[in-house]
Amino acid sequence: MIILGLDPSLSCTGWGLVQAEGSRLSHLANGQIPTDPKLPIAQRLSLIHAEIAEVIAQHRPDRGACEEVFVNKNAQSTLKLSQARGAVLAACGAAGLPVAEHSARKVKQSVVGTGSADKHQISAMLKVLLPGAEIAGADAADALAVAIADAHLGAA
Amino acid sequence: MIILGLDPSLSCTGWGLVQAEGSRLSHLANGQIPTDPKLPIAQRLSLIHAEIAEVIAQHRPDRGACEEVFVNKNAQSTLKLSQARGAVLAACGAAGLPVAEHSARKVKQSVVGTGSADKHQISAMLKVLLPGAEIAGADAADALAVAIADAHLGAA
Repeated sequence: MIILGLDPSLSCTGWGLVQAEGSRLSHLANGQIPTDPKLPIAQRLSLIHAEIAEVIAQHRPDRGACEEVFVNKNAQSTLKLSQARGAVLAACGAAGLPVAEHSARKVKQSVVGTGSADKHQISAMLKVLLPGAEIAGADAADALAVAIADAHLGAA
Repeated sequence: MIILGLDPSLSCTGWGLVQAEGSRLSHLANGQIPTDPKLPIAQRLSLIHAEIAEVIAQHRPDRGACEEVFVNKNAQSTLKLSQARGAVLAACGAAGLPVAEHSARKVKQSVVGTGSADKHQISAMLKVLLPGAEIAGADAADALAVAIADAHLGAA
């Protein structure tokens, strides 16, 4: 079972692929899709869509997972995030990939053991759970965390 | 100059194509993309993306236009709308289509002459401005209104 974790954002979308065999997890690949803020938004979204489609075509995951949107008090941020999410999910849908959503709290709880874990704790646990994985950056790390959480939660 | 007006929404995205030659406008085509609320959101978004890509490939518009997002007090509505918008804009970006955004007020002002026009006034003006056009529904009508506004505003 190959799980694609996704952390959509207009500025830099993270993705991470994890293989789950029973309770054993292994790292397959991860990456980030930064987009140039000077480009028109439609172009940035098409880049995100195309790269996620390429990741799916190359690695053929069985399912996808992303965090539930945290509806920000800053409506403009929510708008940007949701548009990126729309582009990412459209790419998943086109490939017939089912995408589960997990709350940020559940992801943290699943990876670190507490829903209030910070970025450093997540990062430390990723090193333990996916030894040897070279992680492209903070957004790829978040995506891997979602994939791991999905492996745990999906198996439950 | 062919302008593609867009009215993205998860439940039913409207689109409308208008040809502008100087101040002369003519109707080319319009349509709606309803999606089944029982389907997973990723599939609904991929359908919207694919159909807009198809409309662009078939009619080769010179530019696109949509309304600025009205950030709703209902965060869940804003989220759904923005995701649909992300799928639509990604399709435009992939085709290299520039997409302008106009406020709802400017669209109404441009089509009817007053920023507080209601749906009936817009519908009546569409019949005058695009005589003979068979309009697929309310969402296609909104999309045509945006295209007309863009023709007026872009020429200004």
